[in-house]
Amino acid sequence: MTDFTLFQPRLASRMSGVQASEIRELLRVADAPGVISFGGGIPDPSLFPTADMAATVTEILADPAQGARALQYSVSEGEPELRQWVADRLTAQGVTCAPENVLITSGAQQGLDFLGRILIDRGDEVLTEWPTYLGALQAFGPNGPVYRPLEGHNAMGATTGPGRKAFAYVVPDFANPTGATMTRAARDRLLALAEAEDFIVVEDNPYGALRFEGEVLPSLLALDAGARGHVDASRVVHLGSFSKILSPGLRVGWMVAAKPLIKKLVLMKQASDLNAPRLNQMAALRLAQAGLDTRIARAVERYRGKRDAMLAALETAMPEGLRWNRPEGGMFLWLTLPEGMDAAALLPKAIEAGVAFVPGAAFYPNRDVRNCMRLSYSLPSEADIADGIQRLGRVLRG
Amino acid sequence: MTDFTLFQPRLASRMSGVQASEIRELLRVADAPGVISFGGGIPDPSLFPTADMAATVTEILADPAQGARALQYSVSEGEPELRQWVADRLTAQGVTCAPENVLITSGAQQGLDFLGRILIDRGDEVLTEWPTYLGALQAFGPNGPVYRPLEGHNAMGATTGPGRKAFAYVVPDFANPTGATMTRAARDRLLALAEAEDFIVVEDNPYGALRFEGEVLPSLLALDAGARGHVDASRVVHLGSFSKILSPGLRVGWMVAAKPLIKKLVLMKQASDLNAPRLNQMAALRLAQAGLDTRIARAVERYRGKRDAMLAALETAMPEGLRWNRPEGGMFLWLTLPEGMDAAALLPKAIEAGVAFVPGAAFYPNRDVRNCMRLSYSLPSEADIADGIQRLGRVLRG
Repeated sequence: MTDFTLFQPRLASRMSGVQASEIRELLRVADAPGVISFGGGIPDPSLFPTADMAATVTEILADPAQGARALQYSVSEGEPELRQWVADRLTAQGVTCAPENVLITSGAQQGLDFLGRILIDRGDEVLTEWPTYLGALQAFGPNGPVYRPLEGHNAMGATTGPGRKAFAYVVPDFANPTGATMTRAARDRLLALAEAEDFIVVEDNPYGALRFEGEVLPSLLALDAGARGHVDASRVVHLGSFSKILSPGLRVGWMVAAKPLIKKLVLMKQASDLNAPRLNQMAALRLAQAGLDTRIARAVERYRGKRDAMLAALETAMPEGLRWNRPEGGMFLWLTLPEGMDAAALLPKAIEAGVAFVPGAAFYPNRDVRNCMRLSYSLPSEADIADGIQRLGRVLRG
Repeated sequence: MTDFTLFQPRLASRMSGVQASEIRELLRVADAPGVISFGGGIPDPSLFPTADMAATVTEILADPAQGARALQYSVSEGEPELRQWVADRLTAQGVTCAPENVLITSGAQQGLDFLGRILIDRGDEVLTEWPTYLGALQAFGPNGPVYRPLEGHNAMGATTGPGRKAFAYVVPDFANPTGATMTRAARDRLLALAEAEDFIVVEDNPYGALRFEGEVLPSLLALDAGARGHVDASRVVHLGSFSKILSPGLRVGWMVAAKPLIKKLVLMKQASDLNAPRLNQMAALRLAQAGLDTRIARAVERYRGKRDAMLAALETAMPEGLRWNRPEGGMFLWLTLPEGMDAAALLPKAIEAGVAFVPGAAFYPNRDVRNCMRLSYSLPSEADIADGIQRLGRVLRG
């Protein structure tokens, strides 16, 4: 039996909309040698702390007590010292919080999954940027939300509908997929709207440390907790991760929120996978304590160079009628084609020409905008970026 | 604000039954020095491969290509070589399967979470042993199942009710919490019932390798896939893990099932946490390829000695009227008190006397049986086991 006759009738109703993405399958092909991929938001592995990681793991495992601890079960909340580090780092950024406000997760993605399950009932509204992070749509989807665009993010009229609002979800700094950053005024407006309409705000911030230029803006959590005196009084749930500043393979992220919500989320962590891998937490903490800001500075320099290479190539290679932004940080740039063009239809041709991107429709909750694409500059070399954009220009010229 | 006024009204309805366990809080106290705990199913850390793990991680990270790979994002399915290892190991146990039948998870617990979400609609029946694994109840709970006892596991009459059956869940080898093993006849009966009533069988097998004595019995997957020729034709979903034979801190487990179901589960893995940590998968694979059976033999010897110490102590220390079993493997033993006694009521007194256990009611889906307790012998030394059982005996004598 290779069909699905045994299991298909038994799938829970929440699975009805869940299916593999054709785009993902296509991009898998794009991993072939000779294709320059602007597809995934993949960190440059030459930035990874491989030698320091080996030394750190060896040091942990050489100590009998630490070694036994590293390979044992752990508490679902996460390692106390790592929770303390997260709390200290946020406090230094003006967010008064305690280790008890922190849950360690398997990357920020797991935080999105937990929030969807804990906060969304079928038919609840989720407010998002338009487009927004695909992984968030995948995480929230099985819970049956209705998506509404946040103010200023489309021309669909009313910001919110008649349903119960589960929360607003935003990536305020160097967003995936657009690379755009919410202005200070937009942050204030969102928090005022959340206060007026009494909804939770989920702030996903994996890229915030990767700022190339421009003014550092306070996080939504800093603004809201600042105004209220403490995270415990804030309606913002903040997600962070080591994935973009240390290593995504470790799968160590965190959520920061009022303690009562963290307590519920700890129960979900326990039921989901007991605890995050302990050795990973211990190693990430040690690497974070020793020179993280130096690592981040190096990453910022590297990714700024790559962004500049992409911007320069776009200037020379793109035909008339295309628009793109100049991200102030992060890993992505957003390209808008003339009205009526469909980026997804161009992808097979592009792959044939040796370049790949992610068509933009996947990032729209209703998949209703098609003349756009996400270009990630984080992984390819500057030379490949120049080459790849030239190839893309030729494809776009037809 | 330290109450829950902001978030409580926003919790999804599926969270209504989810709350912290008082027992767990009590057992947290039992971690105090001076208390001998038979509480958690915690592996003996002196069995952990700390030195080999350090050497393996160093070796992986010293190779530039391997190191970059280890710290990078990975495919949601899991590392191909590890999936191959799982498939090969099962094939050697008589289960014909391919790497595409395997999904790598964050411990077997994540497999339970995924199965609950993918297969249970509110009101669906889940058939279980009675008592059963608490973590499974926690994983399935938010999806709203109705639990029914499997044949032979209570005297409640009818095995199944009128609802749609999501699946049967069993731990056939050295079950958590009882330490009991399903006979070959019971396995055959369960598979025949599943065939007759057309439901899925979830086989959770974290302890199977830890057999101290007695005949090795074929897994449910081996029986069903054997009868049908291939895993792809089987109605059994099999869960395994390195937690009890290598290290729980790595959080590396696996699910084995027909390919179409694995494909759906891969989508769930992707939405939940993208992928299992890659370094952990690579290191676990290398340790599994080099001497896993020697490690298992050492663990079997160690845990057999501890079980024997507990059985010997029970013989001398327990008052009349108590019953317990002789597990043939694993980490747990089940103690039944006289009718009318409540193990939970004894726990505070026991902790005061310097010994802890898990009251049995927590393992019953309806929490309706109270005169029983789970004793885990895996973590304490043989001397502490003897001491702890003496203390427990004094508490039980009043």
